[in-house]
Amino acid sequence: MLFDPSLHYLDNAATTLVAPEVAEAVRAAMAEHWANPSALYAPAARSEAALSAARAVLAKTIGCSPGEVVFTGCGSEGNNIALLGLAAARKSWGRKIVASGYEHPSVARPLERLAQEGWRVELVPPAQDGRLPLDELLNRVDKATALVACMQVNNETGAQNDVAALAAGAKAANSRTAVHVDGVQGWLRLPPFTKAALANIDSYTVSGHKIHAPKGVGALYLRRGCSIQPPYLGGGQERGIRPGTENVPYAVGLGVAAGRLAGDIPARAAAAAGLNARLRAGLAAIPGVLLNSPEDAVPQVLNLSLGAGRPRSETMLHFLEARGVYVSSGSACSKGAASHTLMAMGLPAGRIDTALRVSFCADNTAADVDALLEGLEAGLKSLQANRGRHRG
Amino acid sequence: MLFDPSLHYLDNAATTLVAPEVAEAVRAAMAEHWANPSALYAPAARSEAALSAARAVLAKTIGCSPGEVVFTGCGSEGNNIALLGLAAARKSWGRKIVASGYEHPSVARPLERLAQEGWRVELVPPAQDGRLPLDELLNRVDKATALVACMQVNNETGAQNDVAALAAGAKAANSRTAVHVDGVQGWLRLPPFTKAALANIDSYTVSGHKIHAPKGVGALYLRRGCSIQPPYLGGGQERGIRPGTENVPYAVGLGVAAGRLAGDIPARAAAAAGLNARLRAGLAAIPGVLLNSPEDAVPQVLNLSLGAGRPRSETMLHFLEARGVYVSSGSACSKGAASHTLMAMGLPAGRIDTALRVSFCADNTAADVDALLEGLEAGLKSLQANRGRHRG
Repeated sequence: MLFDPSLHYLDNAATTLVAPEVAEAVRAAMAEHWANPSALYAPAARSEAALSAARAVLAKTIGCSPGEVVFTGCGSEGNNIALLGLAAARKSWGRKIVASGYEHPSVARPLERLAQEGWRVELVPPAQDGRLPLDELLNRVDKATALVACMQVNNETGAQNDVAALAAGAKAANSRTAVHVDGVQGWLRLPPFTKAALANIDSYTVSGHKIHAPKGVGALYLRRGCSIQPPYLGGGQERGIRPGTENVPYAVGLGVAAGRLAGDIPARAAAAAGLNARLRAGLAAIPGVLLNSPEDAVPQVLNLSLGAGRPRSETMLHFLEARGVYVSSGSACSKGAASHTLMAMGLPAGRIDTALRVSFCADNTAADVDALLEGLEAGLKSLQANRGRHRG
Repeated sequence: MLFDPSLHYLDNAATTLVAPEVAEAVRAAMAEHWANPSALYAPAARSEAALSAARAVLAKTIGCSPGEVVFTGCGSEGNNIALLGLAAARKSWGRKIVASGYEHPSVARPLERLAQEGWRVELVPPAQDGRLPLDELLNRVDKATALVACMQVNNETGAQNDVAALAAGAKAANSRTAVHVDGVQGWLRLPPFTKAALANIDSYTVSGHKIHAPKGVGALYLRRGCSIQPPYLGGGQERGIRPGTENVPYAVGLGVAAGRLAGDIPARAAAAAGLNARLRAGLAAIPGVLLNSPEDAVPQVLNLSLGAGRPRSETMLHFLEARGVYVSSGSACSKGAASHTLMAMGLPAGRIDTALRVSFCADNTAADVDALLEGLEAGLKSLQANRGRHRG
């Protein structure tokens, strides 16, 4: 791990440790870029130039132009701006929104609000194997469809969707339909979009704290010319899409974090795939353990269930924690609530209640995987024995 | 100045330099509080505890309970959440919104949007002396008034409003009316509210980068029990008012920045008053210069006009910049556009076009004021002479 070898941090889909060079860039920018970028003097122009440089790095990692990148405070904010803003700009003719049934709460909750306001929101659930039937989303796109929303990589299982194909299909069905992609778990794990693919995607949300930047910064790609009614208004910062004095230090840090990963996406994915395979092999030796991630999920995430009758997620999580191994019971945001993705997949309660999400970054090692596997085996023995005693 | 004695930074209402101890707290928190506060293990509880500690400091500086403080990404975001959220929660019976006519764009623009959506928005302009007739705002509060919005301290002139009296009056006129106060320029320049005063204020926005915290963090006081419909939705972070993984490092930094100033508000105000008096005395010796700030403005801001026929704001600003003196032509957010406050005051164009805003922090010195005064006198001579030559 980045800071401490006794720390087996395997919850990188929840958040990542800030990379030292990112922290240093933030620290330096706090001192150097003191001027408000909107002021009229030269130090302000330097703050603005630092923002622009970071914006250019982000654009390259997404596959778009710098002018299409808006800095945000987090992925949730980006999703809200996109969904509420795209829907509002299409309400004169749109009646319908189509989305996957396993979106993050920052997509799912705004869609519920839009449904309360009269939109017809149609959700397509994933199959039991965790795969999303994209053709069923596409079949629902009609003349009244203002918006299609689908995440690139599911945050709980790592299931990935061919959002480029979805976007192309949606635009073919209705060229006025806006396509929003939550890219928080896909960005910099998957390669940048091609220009042709991105031409069909209207908005794409990314978050800094999933890529070793601090919590509290993100970005939103907004296709040039895409009509949107920004929900929040104020000064004209960020093309009027996100008012407020720009967070120059974190924007600079986000640029450094993105640049740091952009060069070797395939190598990092290969490293994660190695760890993932090691974990799958180890889990195969533990009878009863079930995998909830599809075979073709991104290698950075593996969701498993201990199995009905076994210790519940939270119990095992705390057992592992005592051994310096950190995983989650689902998405961090739901704070221990049952996984919305596994429920959408229609898995039985005993499988959902014993689910654990393991998520890698490229800094993880085989020792982290082995510590997890040893912990799981020890936990199953010790917690089951305890349970036996309590019963006896 | 904090970093460089040759820097005469007199634009603290636009943004402030990050205090070294704040930068250090942010740096340390980036390393230490790596866990997502919503995760279930002990390091996450430590991240959460760091947030809570910062929240408690903020609460003390505002005069409220920690549970009434929501962290935000900036003052503009806080204003948008409050105005849009309070209005939405009152739209079943409310028809009308009353506000001052010199609000910041992050209040003025959302109110324009609400007006487009059918709200009757009544704005009360300031008088020519910069003072806002609060009784005129109060006279407009009726049974249909859902919301009253008024800034505590105007960002361009430093004019201060007795928002506690306004809030009490508004509640007396209609107990259901929500009162929002933009406190971005007043917070920690004026003493915290008393409990009795705050009982009538439903929301109060503050911003970090005006008090030596980094740009990109703020907070919103939301009175316990006040009904609001949060515009953005997602995970349940920040009481559901501001979704998204919490920016722990900046929240910690904001707490340090607030704690740093909270102890000696009167001493810092006295220091600013000394600088303000020195500046006023110096300006009185320059014939033709007019003051646009009322006598009873906060001492941290002084708005002046060189006078009709004299160099325009931006020209003088760049002349001063060459001498290491930084002031602004208006609010930073408007990026050189004519001052909305001076226009609302009904001042003539020649006075608006030659306006400069000087704004102090407690780290400024008499040398900064003297450098400004020397710069102004030299500028008036040199720029007038140039102008004479161009004409000749």
